[in-house]
Amino acid sequence: MSTIARPPRRSAFFLSDRTGITIEMLGHSLLRQFENLSFTEITLPYLDTTEKAETIVAQINDCAVLDGMRPLIFSTFVNPEIRAILDSANALHLDCFNIFISPLETELGIRSSHTMGHSHRVEDGMDYGHRIEAIRYTLEHDDGISHRNWQQAGIILIGVSRSGKTPTCLYLALQYGICAANYPLTPEDFRYRQLPAELRNLRDKLFGFTTDPVRLHQIRNERKPGSEYASLKNCEYEVREAEALMRQEGIPYLDATNKSIEELATAVLHEVKLERKIY
Amino acid sequence: MSTIARPPRRSAFFLSDRTGITIEMLGHSLLRQFENLSFTEITLPYLDTTEKAETIVAQINDCAVLDGMRPLIFSTFVNPEIRAILDSANALHLDCFNIFISPLETELGIRSSHTMGHSHRVEDGMDYGHRIEAIRYTLEHDDGISHRNWQQAGIILIGVSRSGKTPTCLYLALQYGICAANYPLTPEDFRYRQLPAELRNLRDKLFGFTTDPVRLHQIRNERKPGSEYASLKNCEYEVREAEALMRQEGIPYLDATNKSIEELATAVLHEVKLERKIY
Repeated sequence: MSTIARPPRRSAFFLSDRTGITIEMLGHSLLRQFENLSFTEITLPYLDTTEKAETIVAQINDCAVLDGMRPLIFSTFVNPEIRAILDSANALHLDCFNIFISPLETELGIRSSHTMGHSHRVEDGMDYGHRIEAIRYTLEHDDGISHRNWQQAGIILIGVSRSGKTPTCLYLALQYGICAANYPLTPEDFRYRQLPAELRNLRDKLFGFTTDPVRLHQIRNERKPGSEYASLKNCEYEVREAEALMRQEGIPYLDATNKSIEELATAVLHEVKLERKIY
Repeated sequence: MSTIARPPRRSAFFLSDRTGITIEMLGHSLLRQFENLSFTEITLPYLDTTEKAETIVAQINDCAVLDGMRPLIFSTFVNPEIRAILDSANALHLDCFNIFISPLETELGIRSSHTMGHSHRVEDGMDYGHRIEAIRYTLEHDDGISHRNWQQAGIILIGVSRSGKTPTCLYLALQYGICAANYPLTPEDFRYRQLPAELRNLRDKLFGFTTDPVRLHQIRNERKPGSEYASLKNCEYEVREAEALMRQEGIPYLDATNKSIEELATAVLHEVKLERKIY
């Protein structure tokens, strides 16, 4: 029996002497530009000795033989010695440090401090505490759990259950240190078509998510199959009422259907003009 | 009265026709290489029309005059027309697409699909559902809340209260779609120096955080000042007992003191050899 021939996958290595998070995001996003190709993606953080670098070069060279084509390396190495060892691999090696730091040094007229990856270090205790506090606040104010201290929130997301509020709030807290509360709109709010009194006083912090009722029905049905809550009829009712309520109250909202967490978080920051503090 | 002369800050723009998250992380991390300089960092996402691009060029040129030096632009533009408009600004313009895609196209022998930012799109419904499910699981298994379905976890973090478990679990879920539970070690576990029975059966999923007792005391004291829980004596006792328990049970652990959430998440993935699935 013959098997269907699959095109060989090229290996892509994301290498760093620190966490490797930035380089893997960048490399992954660049590879997605080549939609018809698929890659085996391997992230290796903390490559901070020449011994480790030499071991990896041997592994990459083996990959080149196995794959029948040379791998790609995306890296950020501060240590020029380690960078040079990786340059000797049988691969296309694109190093962020090499590519960006040199033009920046020329422009800024100053040498860099060769400490790539510092962005995530806990040098600034205040900043770090602020971010941890935002995460704690966001957890305590998820899904309308606590109505207290809503005025402390940077943003309060509202919308029907399962419209994407919780993941977006967590992303805003983790990535940007924003205290992000969320409040689910339920049939109780629709009965008199009004928001809880505490929220009505905080209108400038409110932002709404709406969603496609059919998609909402599918999502809810996975969690609570056959329930009234998940029925298409109820989803249509809730979405219609939620939108009417948000329009009536003048609360800006967007359609969250088929948007990623990153896209929702970015849109919220952009609309509400919150500061993007980067950690 | 004379005021202290401050060196002028240079403006750095992170621009994208999509969310801008990758480029702001990369740009921020590159600027941190220049420790003696400070920058005004501005992220502008969704610059997807030539009109918006021209407005931003005018803003950047104004900045150059105000700052007395030309700004930096880090960008990822798929649309070459928009990229060209930004090139006309009075700034150093480093575009990821220009810099990386061309060598990749040569290496891969194929044209890119010019769709930068696709990495965060919800093209793959399965993947997206998996990530949302990981977030839900992680929230339900935070702080030992639910003991059910621990076997479904990719990782279970243990350690004393306020050692960094919760932010790390949330990061693992959001960034990598990992179901990450955590269980706080408390005096009850120390009394008989043993773990709950359900955890003893899942030893290969367990990973521990320890921390410096003095730092722990400071952190706890901010939340519950003057309490027995926050006292240095109690923090010393808990850390000593937690470490003894983890050693006794053969559970690998690391010192989380002064490590960022990203560093902790990376270390955990690395130690436990979990797959880094990138969203």
